[in-house]
Amino acid sequence: MNDKEVLAAYKARLEAYLDALPMAGAPDRLREAMRYSLLNGGKRLRGCLLLAACELAGGNTEEALPFAAALEMIHAYSLIHDDLPAMDNDTLRRGKPTNHVVFGEAMAILAGDGLLTHAFEVMAAANHPRALRALGEIAKAAGVGGMLAGQTLDVTMEGTEPTMDLVNTIHRGKTAALLTAPITAGLILGGASDTEIEAGREYGYHLGMAFQIVDDLLDLEGDPALMGKTLGKDQAEGKLTWPACVGVDQARKDAEAHIRAAAGALAPFGKKAEFLQTLAFSTLHRVQ
Amino acid sequence: MNDKEVLAAYKARLEAYLDALPMAGAPDRLREAMRYSLLNGGKRLRGCLLLAACELAGGNTEEALPFAAALEMIHAYSLIHDDLPAMDNDTLRRGKPTNHVVFGEAMAILAGDGLLTHAFEVMAAANHPRALRALGEIAKAAGVGGMLAGQTLDVTMEGTEPTMDLVNTIHRGKTAALLTAPITAGLILGGASDTEIEAGREYGYHLGMAFQIVDDLLDLEGDPALMGKTLGKDQAEGKLTWPACVGVDQARKDAEAHIRAAAGALAPFGKKAEFLQTLAFSTLHRVQ
Repeated sequence: MNDKEVLAAYKARLEAYLDALPMAGAPDRLREAMRYSLLNGGKRLRGCLLLAACELAGGNTEEALPFAAALEMIHAYSLIHDDLPAMDNDTLRRGKPTNHVVFGEAMAILAGDGLLTHAFEVMAAANHPRALRALGEIAKAAGVGGMLAGQTLDVTMEGTEPTMDLVNTIHRGKTAALLTAPITAGLILGGASDTEIEAGREYGYHLGMAFQIVDDLLDLEGDPALMGKTLGKDQAEGKLTWPACVGVDQARKDAEAHIRAAAGALAPFGKKAEFLQTLAFSTLHRVQ
Repeated sequence: MNDKEVLAAYKARLEAYLDALPMAGAPDRLREAMRYSLLNGGKRLRGCLLLAACELAGGNTEEALPFAAALEMIHAYSLIHDDLPAMDNDTLRRGKPTNHVVFGEAMAILAGDGLLTHAFEVMAAANHPRALRALGEIAKAAGVGGMLAGQTLDVTMEGTEPTMDLVNTIHRGKTAALLTAPITAGLILGGASDTEIEAGREYGYHLGMAFQIVDDLLDLEGDPALMGKTLGKDQAEGKLTWPACVGVDQARKDAEAHIRAAAGALAPFGKKAEFLQTLAFSTLHRVQ
Protein backbone atom coordinates (compact mmCIF):
# COMPACT_ATOMS: atom_id res chain seq x y z
CA MET A 1 0.00 0.00 0.00
CA ASN A 2 1.19 3.53 -0.70
CA ASP A 3 0.85 6.31 1.90
CA LYS A 4 -2.53 7.44 0.63
CA GLU A 5 -3.92 3.92 0.87
CA VAL A 6 -2.51 3.44 4.37
CA LEU A 7 -4.21 6.67 5.48
CA ALA A 8 -7.47 5.66 3.81
CA ALA A 9 -7.32 2.28 5.55
CA TYR A 10 -6.76 3.89 8.98
CA LYS A 11 -9.65 6.25 8.34
CA ALA A 12 -12.00 3.48 7.22
CA ARG A 13 -11.29 1.37 10.32
CA LEU A 14 -11.77 4.37 12.56
CA GLU A 15 -15.06 5.36 10.89
CA ALA A 16 -16.37 1.83 11.31
CA TYR A 17 -15.33 1.83 14.98
CA LEU A 18 -17.00 5.20 15.64
CA ASP A 19 -20.16 4.21 13.81
CA ALA A 20 -20.42 1.00 15.85
CA LEU A 21 -19.92 2.65 19.27
CA PRO A 22 -22.83 1.39 21.36
CA MET A 23 -23.02 4.46 23.66
CA ALA A 24 -24.81 2.12 26.06
CA GLY A 25 -27.69 3.61 27.97
CA ALA A 26 -27.78 6.90 26.06
CA PRO A 27 -31.32 8.24 25.50
CA ASP A 28 -32.16 8.31 21.76
CA ARG A 29 -32.11 12.09 21.44
CA LEU A 30 -28.68 12.37 23.10
CA ARG A 31 -27.22 9.56 20.96
CA GLU A 32 -28.65 11.20 17.84
CA ALA A 33 -27.11 14.58 18.69
CA MET A 34 -23.73 13.01 19.51
CA ARG A 35 -23.66 10.94 16.31
CA TYR A 36 -24.70 13.93 14.20
CA SER A 37 -21.46 15.72 15.03
CA LEU A 38 -19.23 12.67 15.45
CA LEU A 39 -20.05 11.08 12.09
CA ASN A 40 -19.83 14.18 9.95
CA GLY A 41 -17.28 13.25 7.34
CA GLY A 42 -14.24 14.77 9.02
CA LYS A 43 -10.70 13.98 7.92
CA ARG A 44 -9.99 12.02 11.14
CA LEU A 45 -6.49 13.48 11.20
CA ARG A 46 -6.15 13.12 14.99
CA GLY A 47 -7.27 9.51 15.07
CA CYS A 48 -5.15 8.54 12.06
CA LEU A 49 -2.07 10.20 13.61
CA LEU A 50 -2.54 8.09 16.73
CA LEU A 51 -2.77 4.86 14.73
CA ALA A 52 0.30 5.82 12.68
CA ALA A 53 2.31 6.68 15.81
CA CYS A 54 1.31 3.39 17.44
CA GLU A 55 2.43 1.52 14.33
CA LEU A 56 5.67 3.53 14.20
CA ALA A 57 6.47 2.18 17.68
CA GLY A 58 5.67 -1.36 16.55
CA GLY A 59 2.34 -1.54 18.40
CA ASN A 60 -0.96 -3.21 17.58
CA THR A 61 -3.23 -0.59 15.98
CA GLU A 62 -6.34 -2.64 16.74
CA GLU A 63 -5.78 -2.10 20.47
CA ALA A 64 -5.19 1.60 19.82
CA LEU A 65 -8.55 2.16 18.09
CA PRO A 66 -10.43 3.17 21.29
CA PHE A 67 -7.86 5.93 21.86
CA ALA A 68 -8.04 7.13 18.26
CA ALA A 69 -11.83 7.20 18.62
CA ALA A 70 -11.53 9.11 21.91
CA LEU A 71 -9.51 11.84 20.19
CA GLU A 72 -12.17 12.19 17.51
CA MET A 73 -14.86 12.41 20.21
CA ILE A 74 -12.93 15.13 22.01
CA HIS A 75 -12.41 17.00 18.73
CA ALA A 76 -16.14 16.74 17.94
CA TYR A 77 -17.16 17.95 21.43
CA SER A 78 -14.85 20.96 21.15
CA LEU A 79 -16.42 21.96 17.82
CA ILE A 80 -20.00 21.62 19.17
CA HIS A 81 -19.27 23.83 22.20
CA ASP A 82 -17.23 26.27 20.06
CA ASP A 83 -20.14 26.77 17.69
CA LEU A 84 -22.64 27.61 20.49
CA PRO A 85 -24.29 31.04 20.38
CA ALA A 86 -22.40 32.11 23.52
CA MET A 87 -19.09 31.14 21.89
CA ASP A 88 -18.45 31.60 18.13
CA ASN A 89 -22.18 31.46 17.27
CA ASP A 90 -21.63 29.49 14.06
CA THR A 91 -24.61 28.07 12.25
CA LEU A 92 -22.78 26.07 9.58
CA ARG A 93 -19.95 23.54 9.75
CA ARG A 94 -18.79 21.63 6.69
CA GLY A 95 -21.85 22.90 4.89
CA LYS A 96 -24.28 21.43 7.43
CA PRO A 97 -26.21 23.22 10.20
CA THR A 98 -24.32 23.12 13.49
CA ASN A 99 -25.45 20.91 16.36
CA HIS A 100 -27.37 23.54 18.30
CA VAL A 101 -29.21 24.67 15.17
CA VAL A 102 -30.53 21.14 14.67
CA PHE A 103 -30.98 19.93 18.27
CA GLY A 104 -31.27 23.14 20.27
CA GLU A 105 -28.76 24.69 22.64
CA ALA A 106 -29.50 22.47 25.65
CA MET A 107 -28.99 19.26 23.67
CA ALA A 108 -25.84 20.66 22.03
CA ILE A 109 -24.32 21.38 25.45
CA LEU A 110 -25.25 17.86 26.61
CA ALA A 111 -24.00 16.25 23.37
CA GLY A 112 -20.63 17.96 23.83
CA ASP A 113 -20.46 16.90 27.47
CA GLY A 114 -21.47 13.40 26.39
CA LEU A 115 -18.75 13.08 23.76
CA LEU A 116 -16.07 14.35 26.15
CA THR A 117 -17.13 11.98 28.92
CA HIS A 118 -17.57 9.06 26.53
CA ALA A 119 -14.01 9.51 25.26
CA PHE A 120 -12.74 8.70 28.76
CA GLU A 121 -15.26 5.91 29.25
CA VAL A 122 -14.09 4.21 26.05
CA MET A 123 -10.38 4.61 26.90
CA ALA A 124 -10.86 3.28 30.44
CA ALA A 125 -12.70 0.23 29.07
CA ALA A 126 -9.91 -0.51 26.60
CA ASN A 127 -7.91 -2.25 29.31
CA HIS A 128 -4.59 -1.72 27.51
CA PRO A 129 -1.54 -2.18 29.79
CA ARG A 130 -0.43 1.40 29.07
CA ALA A 131 -3.96 2.85 28.90
CA LEU A 132 -3.65 5.09 31.95
CA ARG A 133 -0.55 6.90 30.69
CA ALA A 134 -2.00 7.37 27.20
CA LEU A 135 -5.29 8.58 28.70
CA GLY A 136 -3.35 11.02 30.86
CA GLU A 137 -1.60 12.50 27.81
CA ILE A 138 -4.95 13.00 26.09
CA ALA A 139 -6.63 14.48 29.20
CA LYS A 140 -3.79 16.95 29.63
CA ALA A 141 -3.86 17.99 25.97
CA ALA A 142 -7.62 18.55 26.08
CA GLY A 143 -7.41 20.19 29.49
CA VAL A 144 -6.99 23.57 31.12
CA GLY A 145 -3.30 23.83 30.22
CA GLY A 146 -3.93 22.63 26.65
CA MET A 147 -6.89 23.01 24.33
CA LEU A 148 -9.07 24.82 26.89
CA ALA A 149 -6.30 27.34 27.57
CA GLY A 150 -6.27 28.14 23.86
CA GLN A 151 -10.06 28.44 23.73
CA THR A 152 -10.12 30.68 26.78
CA LEU A 153 -7.51 33.07 25.39
CA ASP A 154 -9.30 33.02 22.04
CA VAL A 155 -12.48 34.19 23.80
CA THR A 156 -11.00 36.60 26.35
CA MET A 157 -8.30 38.19 24.20
CA GLU A 158 -10.46 38.84 21.15
CA GLY A 159 -9.86 42.39 20.00
CA THR A 160 -6.45 42.84 21.64
CA GLU A 161 -3.30 43.59 19.66
CA PRO A 162 -1.98 40.34 18.12
CA THR A 163 1.53 39.78 19.44
CA MET A 164 3.59 36.78 18.32
CA ASP A 165 3.80 35.49 21.90
CA LEU A 166 0.05 35.59 22.44
CA VAL A 167 -0.84 34.07 19.07
CA ASN A 168 1.77 31.36 19.61
CA THR A 169 0.22 30.50 22.97
CA ILE A 170 -3.28 30.39 21.53
CA HIS A 171 -2.22 28.19 18.58
CA ARG A 172 -0.25 25.91 20.86
CA GLY A 173 -3.32 25.35 23.02
CA LYS A 174 -6.13 25.46 20.49
CA THR A 175 -4.54 23.31 17.82
CA ALA A 176 -1.09 21.92 18.60
CA ALA A 177 -2.11 20.24 21.90
CA LEU A 178 -4.71 18.03 20.25
CA LEU A 179 -2.35 17.20 17.37
CA THR A 180 0.50 16.32 19.74
CA ALA A 181 -1.51 14.01 22.00
CA PRO A 182 -2.27 11.50 19.21
CA ILE A 183 1.45 11.16 18.58
CA THR A 184 2.57 10.81 22.21
CA ALA A 185 -0.38 8.60 23.17
CA GLY A 186 0.08 6.43 20.06
CA LEU A 187 3.79 6.00 20.80
CA ILE A 188 3.02 5.16 24.45
CA LEU A 189 0.46 2.53 23.42
CA GLY A 190 2.93 1.09 20.91
CA GLY A 191 5.59 0.71 23.60
CA ALA A 192 8.02 3.47 22.53
CA SER A 193 10.86 4.64 24.79
CA ASP A 194 10.67 7.95 26.63
CA THR A 195 13.19 9.47 24.19
CA GLU A 196 11.04 8.41 21.26
CA ILE A 197 7.93 9.82 22.94
CA GLU A 198 9.64 13.19 23.39
CA ALA A 199 10.73 13.18 19.72
CA GLY A 200 7.09 12.54 18.85
CA ARG A 201 6.03 15.43 21.09
CA GLU A 202 8.27 17.78 19.12
CA TYR A 203 6.86 16.51 15.83
CA GLY A 204 3.30 17.03 17.09
CA TYR A 205 4.00 20.55 18.30
CA HIS A 206 5.48 21.71 14.99
CA LEU A 207 2.81 19.91 12.97
CA GLY A 208 0.13 21.64 15.03
CA MET A 209 1.64 25.09 14.67
CA ALA A 210 1.99 24.65 10.89
CA PHE A 211 -1.53 23.31 10.70
CA GLN A 212 -3.00 26.38 12.41
CA ILE A 213 -0.93 28.86 10.37
CA VAL A 214 -2.14 27.17 7.18
CA ASP A 215 -5.69 27.42 8.57
CA ASP A 216 -5.21 31.15 9.10
CA LEU A 217 -3.84 31.50 5.56
CA LEU A 218 -6.74 29.54 4.06
CA ASP A 219 -9.16 31.88 5.82
CA LEU A 220 -7.48 34.74 4.01
CA GLU A 221 -6.90 33.10 0.65
CA GLY A 222 -9.75 30.61 0.32
CA ASP A 223 -11.30 32.80 -2.34
CA PRO A 224 -8.75 35.31 -3.71
CA ALA A 225 -11.51 37.54 -5.11
CA LEU A 226 -12.82 38.09 -1.59
CA MET A 227 -9.44 38.37 0.08
CA GLY A 228 -9.69 42.04 0.99
CA LYS A 229 -13.14 41.61 2.45
CA THR A 230 -12.20 38.54 4.42
CA LEU A 231 -9.12 40.30 5.75
CA GLY A 232 -11.28 43.21 6.83
CA LYS A 233 -13.75 40.90 8.57
CA ASP A 234 -11.01 39.12 10.52
CA GLN A 235 -9.60 42.40 11.63
CA ALA A 236 -13.03 43.71 12.60
CA GLU A 237 -13.60 40.66 14.79
CA GLY A 238 -10.16 41.13 16.30
CA LYS A 239 -9.18 37.56 15.44
CA LEU A 240 -5.64 36.75 16.57
CA THR A 241 -3.99 35.07 13.60
CA TRP A 242 -0.39 34.45 12.61
CA PRO A 243 -0.62 36.31 9.28
CA ALA A 244 -2.03 39.27 11.24
CA CYS A 245 1.21 39.27 13.26
CA VAL A 246 3.86 38.69 10.61
CA GLY A 247 2.17 39.12 7.24
CA VAL A 248 1.13 36.51 4.68
CA ASP A 249 4.54 35.85 3.13
CA GLN A 250 6.33 35.36 6.43
CA ALA A 251 3.46 33.20 7.71
CA ARG A 252 3.86 30.88 4.73
CA LYS A 253 7.62 30.65 5.41
CA ASP A 254 6.98 29.97 9.10
CA ALA A 255 4.55 27.15 8.29
CA GLU A 256 7.18 25.56 6.06
CA ALA A 257 9.84 25.92 8.77
CA HIS A 258 7.54 24.23 11.30
CA ILE A 259 6.96 21.33 8.91
CA ARG A 260 10.70 20.89 8.31
CA ALA A 261 11.20 20.91 12.10
CA ALA A 262 8.42 18.35 12.49
CA ALA A 263 9.99 16.03 9.93
CA GLY A 264 13.43 16.52 11.47
CA ALA A 265 12.16 15.63 14.95
CA LEU A 266 11.37 12.11 13.75
CA ALA A 267 14.89 11.50 12.36
CA PRO A 268 15.73 9.11 15.25
CA PHE A 269 13.09 6.71 13.89
CA GLY A 270 14.85 6.47 10.52
CA LYS A 271 12.98 5.31 7.42
CA LYS A 272 10.01 4.05 9.45
CA ALA A 273 9.02 7.68 10.07
CA GLU A 274 8.57 8.51 6.39
CA PHE A 275 4.82 8.09 6.52
CA LEU A 276 4.38 10.72 9.28
CA GLN A 277 6.96 12.99 7.65
CA THR A 278 5.16 12.92 4.30
CA LEU A 279 1.85 13.46 6.05
CA ALA A 280 3.28 16.58 7.70
CA PHE A 281 4.38 18.05 4.36
CA SER A 282 0.95 17.36 2.89
CA THR A 283 -0.66 19.74 5.42
CA LEU A 284 1.08 22.62 3.63
CA HIS A 285 -0.86 21.91 0.47
CA ARG A 286 -4.28 21.01 1.82
CA VAL A 287 -7.22 22.93 0.47
CA GLN A 288 -9.64 22.61 3.38
CA MET B 1 -13.56 10.28 66.68
CA ASN B 2 -17.31 9.95 66.37
CA ASP B 3 -19.03 9.76 62.96
CA LYS B 4 -19.54 13.50 62.72
CA GLU B 5 -15.87 14.16 63.39
CA VAL B 6 -14.79 11.52 60.86
CA LEU B 7 -16.97 13.16 58.22
CA ALA B 8 -15.64 16.63 59.11
CA ALA B 9 -12.07 15.34 58.84
CA TYR B 10 -12.71 13.81 55.39
CA LYS B 11 -14.29 17.07 54.26
CA ALA B 12 -11.43 19.22 55.58
CA ARG B 13 -8.77 17.11 53.81
CA LEU B 14 -10.76 17.20 50.59
CA GLU B 15 -11.28 20.98 50.78
CA ALA B 16 -7.55 21.48 51.29
CA TYR B 17 -6.76 19.20 48.34
CA LEU B 18 -9.23 20.99 46.05
CA ASP B 19 -7.99 24.41 47.12
CA ALA B 20 -4.38 23.41 46.39
CA LEU B 21 -5.05 21.96 42.91
CA PRO B 22 -2.50 23.69 40.68
CA MET B 23 -4.60 23.49 37.45
CA ALA B 24 -1.27 23.89 35.67
CA GLY B 25 -1.30 26.07 32.59
CA ALA B 26 -4.85 27.37 33.06
CA PRO B 27 -5.28 31.03 32.07
CA ASP B 28 -6.19 33.17 35.10
CA ARG B 29 -9.77 33.83 34.04
CA LEU B 30 -10.47 30.12 33.46
CA ARG B 31 -8.94 29.11 36.79
CA GLU B 32 -10.94 31.82 38.54
CA ALA B 33 -14.21 30.62 36.99
CA MET B 34 -13.44 26.98 37.83
CA ARG B 35 -12.48 27.76 41.42
CA TYR B 36 -15.56 29.96 41.91
CA SER B 37 -17.84 26.95 41.46
CA LEU B 38 -15.52 24.27 42.84
CA LEU B 39 -14.82 25.99 46.16
CA ASN B 40 -18.35 27.04 47.00
CA GLY B 41 -18.95 25.50 50.39
CA GLY B 42 -20.70 22.34 49.21
CA LYS B 43 -21.25 19.37 51.50
CA ARG B 44 -18.67 17.24 49.58
CA LEU B 45 -20.94 14.24 50.01
CA ARG B 46 -19.60 12.48 46.89
CA GLY B 47 -15.95 12.92 47.80
CA CYS B 48 -16.50 11.92 51.44
CA LEU B 49 -18.41 8.80 50.35
CA LEU B 50 -15.43 7.77 48.22
CA LEU B 51 -12.98 8.20 51.10
CA ALA B 52 -15.29 6.28 53.45
CA ALA B 53 -15.71 3.44 50.94
CA CYS B 54 -11.95 3.27 50.42
CA GLU B 55 -11.44 3.07 54.17
CA LEU B 56 -14.18 0.43 54.49
CA ALA B 57 -12.14 -1.75 52.13
CA GLY B 58 -9.01 -1.15 54.19
CA GLY B 59 -7.41 1.19 51.64
CA ASN B 60 -5.24 4.28 52.04
CA THR B 61 -7.50 7.34 51.85
CA GLU B 62 -4.55 9.62 51.02
CA GLU B 63 -4.13 7.82 47.69
CA ALA B 64 -7.87 8.08 47.09
CA LEU B 65 -7.99 11.88 47.45
CA PRO B 66 -7.49 12.61 43.70
CA PHE B 67 -10.53 10.46 42.92
CA ALA B 68 -12.64 12.11 45.63
CA ALA B 69 -11.58 15.47 44.18
CA ALA B 70 -12.46 14.28 40.67
CA LEU B 71 -16.01 13.49 41.77
CA GLU B 72 -16.39 16.95 43.24
CA MET B 73 -15.07 18.48 40.00
CA ILE B 74 -17.57 16.47 37.97
CA HIS B 75 -20.38 17.48 40.35
CA ALA B 76 -19.37 21.15 40.06
CA TYR B 77 -19.20 21.00 36.23
CA SER B 78 -22.66 19.44 36.06
CA LEU B 79 -24.12 22.26 38.18
CA ILE B 80 -22.46 24.99 36.06
CA HIS B 81 -23.81 23.55 32.81
CA ASP B 82 -27.22 22.84 34.41
CA ASP B 83 -27.57 26.46 35.48
CA LEU B 84 -26.86 27.85 31.98
CA PRO B 85 -29.60 29.95 30.34
CA ALA B 86 -30.19 27.24 27.71
CA MET B 87 -30.65 24.65 30.48
CA ASP B 88 -32.37 25.48 33.81
CA ASN B 89 -31.49 29.18 33.56
CA ASP B 90 -30.74 29.55 37.27
CA THR B 91 -29.16 32.75 38.54
CA LEU B 92 -28.57 31.72 42.16
CA ARG B 93 -26.96 28.67 43.74
CA ARG B 94 -26.38 28.41 47.47
CA GLY B 95 -27.25 32.09 47.72
CA LYS B 96 -24.52 33.17 45.28
CA PRO B 97 -24.86 34.22 41.64
CA THR B 98 -24.33 31.25 39.31
CA ASN B 99 -21.15 30.91 37.25
CA HIS B 100 -22.48 32.40 34.01
CA VAL B 101 -23.94 35.38 35.83
CA VAL B 102 -20.48 36.23 37.18
CA PHE B 103 -18.20 35.15 34.31
CA GLY B 104 -20.51 35.18 31.29
CA GLU B 105 -21.91 32.25 29.36
CA ALA B 106 -18.81 31.51 27.29
CA MET B 107 -16.56 31.26 30.35
CA ALA B 108 -19.16 29.18 32.20
CA ILE B 109 -19.25 26.66 29.36
CA LEU B 110 -15.43 26.54 29.34
CA ALA B 111 -15.22 26.32 33.15
CA GLY B 112 -17.57 23.32 33.10
CA ASP B 113 -15.59 21.68 30.31
CA GLY B 114 -12.41 22.45 32.25
CA LEU B 115 -13.60 20.87 35.50
CA LEU B 116 -14.82 17.74 33.68
CA THR B 117 -11.54 17.32 31.80
CA HIS B 118 -9.44 18.15 34.84
CA ALA B 119 -11.17 15.42 36.82
CA PHE B 120 -9.76 12.86 34.40
CA GLU B 121 -6.36 14.55 34.24
CA VAL B 122 -6.06 14.38 38.04
CA MET B 123 -7.17 10.74 38.21
CA ALA B 124 -4.80 9.69 35.43
CA ALA B 125 -1.90 11.40 37.21
CA ALA B 126 -2.68 9.62 40.49
CA ASN B 127 -0.83 6.55 39.29
CA HIS B 128 -2.72 4.23 41.65
CA PRO B 129 -2.46 0.53 40.69
CA ARG B 130 -6.27 0.31 40.34
CA ALA B 131 -6.72 3.84 38.96
CA LEU B 132 -7.96 2.80 35.52
CA ARG B 133 -10.82 0.69 36.87
CA ALA B 134 -11.87 3.36 39.37
CA LEU B 135 -11.67 6.02 36.65
CA GLY B 136 -13.81 3.82 34.41
CA GLU B 137 -16.52 3.56 37.08
CA ILE B 138 -16.58 7.32 37.45
CA ALA B 139 -16.59 7.97 33.67
CA LYS B 140 -19.50 5.58 33.22
CA ALA B 141 -21.48 7.14 36.05
CA ALA B 142 -20.95 10.65 34.66
CA GLY B 143 -21.54 9.46 31.10
CA VAL B 144 -24.29 9.01 28.55
CA GLY B 145 -25.78 5.98 30.33
CA GLY B 146 -25.52 7.68 33.75
CA MET B 147 -25.77 11.29 34.80
CA LEU B 148 -26.09 12.65 31.25
CA ALA B 149 -28.95 10.23 30.52
CA GLY B 150 -30.78 11.68 33.53
CA GLN B 151 -30.07 15.26 32.44
CA THR B 152 -31.24 14.55 28.90
CA LEU B 153 -34.53 13.01 30.01
CA ASP B 154 -34.99 15.86 32.48
CA VAL B 155 -34.69 18.32 29.58
CA THR B 156 -36.54 16.42 26.86
CA MET B 157 -39.38 14.95 28.94
CA GLU B 158 -40.30 18.14 30.79
CA GLY B 159 -44.05 18.55 30.71
CA THR B 160 -44.90 14.90 30.06
CA GLU B 161 -47.01 12.81 32.44
CA PRO B 162 -44.80 11.67 35.38
CA THR B 163 -44.85 7.87 35.42
CA MET B 164 -42.98 5.92 38.11
CA ASP B 165 -40.82 4.25 35.47
CA LEU B 166 -39.72 7.52 33.89
CA VAL B 167 -39.08 9.32 37.18
CA ASN B 168 -37.14 6.30 38.43
CA THR B 169 -34.96 6.39 35.31
CA ILE B 170 -34.33 10.12 35.64
CA HIS B 171 -33.46 9.88 39.35
CA ARG B 172 -31.22 6.89 38.72
CA GLY B 173 -29.26 8.84 36.12
CA LYS B 174 -29.34 12.35 37.53
CA THR B 175 -28.56 11.53 41.14
CA ALA B 176 -27.98 7.86 41.93
CA ALA B 177 -25.22 7.35 39.34
CA LEU B 178 -22.94 9.99 40.85
CA LEU B 179 -23.66 8.76 44.40
CA THR B 180 -22.94 5.15 43.44
CA ALA B 181 -19.62 5.82 41.69
CA PRO B 182 -17.92 7.14 44.86
CA ILE B 183 -18.78 3.90 46.62
CA THR B 184 -17.71 1.50 43.87
CA ALA B 185 -14.60 3.53 42.95
CA GLY B 186 -13.65 3.90 46.62
CA LEU B 187 -14.02 0.17 47.20
CA ILE B 188 -12.00 -0.59 44.05
CA LEU B 189 -9.20 1.72 45.19
CA GLY B 190 -9.26 0.15 48.63
CA GLY B 191 -8.83 -3.32 47.17
CA ALA B 192 -12.33 -4.74 47.81
CA SER B 193 -13.50 -7.99 46.21
CA ASP B 194 -15.97 -8.01 43.31
CA THR B 195 -18.74 -9.20 45.65
CA GLU B 196 -18.06 -6.32 48.02
CA ILE B 197 -18.03 -3.85 45.12
CA GLU B 198 -21.44 -5.07 43.99
CA ALA B 199 -22.80 -4.73 47.55
CA GLY B 200 -21.49 -1.16 47.51
CA ARG B 201 -23.20 -0.56 44.17
CA GLU B 202 -26.55 -1.57 45.69
CA TYR B 203 -25.95 0.74 48.67
CA GLY B 204 -25.12 3.65 46.34
CA TYR B 205 -28.19 3.09 44.19
CA HIS B 206 -30.60 3.10 47.11
CA LEU B 207 -28.84 6.01 48.79
CA GLY B 208 -29.09 8.00 45.56
CA MET B 209 -32.78 7.26 45.06
CA ALA B 210 -33.58 8.23 48.65
CA PHE B 211 -31.46 11.36 48.32
CA GLN B 212 -33.39 12.54 45.25
CA ILE B 213 -36.81 11.74 46.75
CA VAL B 214 -35.88 13.76 49.85
CA ASP B 215 -34.76 16.56 47.50
CA ASP B 216 -38.17 16.48 45.81
CA LEU B 217 -39.89 16.55 49.22
CA LEU B 218 -37.77 19.46 50.42
CA ASP B 219 -38.79 21.40 47.32
CA LEU B 220 -42.39 20.93 48.36
CA GLU B 221 -42.03 21.33 52.10
CA GLY B 222 -39.16 23.77 52.53
CA ASP B 223 -41.66 26.40 53.62
CA PRO B 224 -44.95 24.74 54.60
CA ALA B 225 -46.89 28.01 54.29
CA LEU B 226 -46.04 28.15 50.59
CA MET B 227 -46.53 24.47 49.94
CA GLY B 228 -49.60 24.79 47.75
CA LYS B 229 -47.96 27.45 45.64
CA THR B 230 -44.69 25.54 45.28
CA LEU B 231 -46.62 22.44 44.28
CA GLY B 232 -48.45 24.46 41.67
CA LYS B 233 -45.16 25.86 40.32
CA ASP B 234 -43.60 22.41 39.99
CA GLN B 235 -46.66 21.19 38.16
CA ALA B 236 -46.70 24.22 35.88
CA GLU B 237 -43.07 23.56 34.93
CA GLY B 238 -43.93 19.92 34.34
CA LYS B 239 -41.16 18.80 36.72
CA LEU B 240 -40.99 15.03 37.02
CA THR B 241 -40.77 14.33 40.75
CA TRP B 242 -41.44 11.29 42.88
CA PRO B 243 -44.06 12.98 45.10
CA ALA B 244 -45.84 14.02 41.87
CA CYS B 245 -46.11 10.30 41.02
CA VAL B 246 -47.06 8.74 44.32
CA GLY B 247 -47.99 11.58 46.67
CA VAL B 248 -46.06 13.05 49.59
CA ASP B 249 -46.83 10.36 52.17
CA GLN B 250 -45.87 7.46 49.92
CA ALA B 251 -42.75 9.32 48.76
CA ARG B 252 -41.61 9.67 52.37
CA LYS B 253 -42.19 5.94 52.92
CA ASP B 254 -40.30 5.10 49.73
CA ALA B 255 -37.30 7.20 50.77
CA GLU B 256 -37.20 5.33 54.08
CA ALA B 257 -37.46 1.99 52.32
CA HIS B 258 -34.54 2.92 50.04
CA ILE B 259 -32.42 3.88 53.04
CA ARG B 260 -33.20 0.60 54.80
CA ALA B 261 -32.25 -1.24 51.60
CA ALA B 262 -29.02 0.79 51.39
CA ALA B 263 -28.07 -0.09 54.95
CA GLY B 264 -29.01 -3.72 54.39
CA ALA B 265 -26.83 -3.94 51.28
CA LEU B 266 -23.72 -3.34 53.40
CA ALA B 267 -24.52 -6.17 55.85
CA PRO B 268 -21.70 -8.35 54.43
CA PHE B 269 -19.19 -5.79 55.75
CA GLY B 270 -20.43 -6.23 59.35
CA LYS B 271 -19.76 -3.56 61.96
CA LYS B 272 -17.21 -1.76 59.77
CA ALA B 273 -20.10 -0.52 57.59
CA GLU B 274 -21.82 1.35 60.42
CA PHE B 275 -20.39 4.70 59.37
CA LEU B 276 -21.88 4.51 55.86
CA GLN B 277 -25.14 3.08 57.22
CA THR B 278 -25.56 5.92 59.70
CA LEU B 279 -24.66 8.43 56.99
CA ALA B 280 -27.42 6.99 54.80
CA PHE B 281 -30.05 7.39 57.55
CA SER B 282 -28.94 10.97 58.11
CA THR B 283 -29.95 11.90 54.54
CA LEU B 284 -33.58 11.38 55.57
CA HIS B 285 -33.33 14.19 58.07
CA ARG B 286 -31.20 16.69 56.21
CA VAL B 287 -32.57 20.18 55.88
CA GLN B 288 -30.80 21.27 52.70
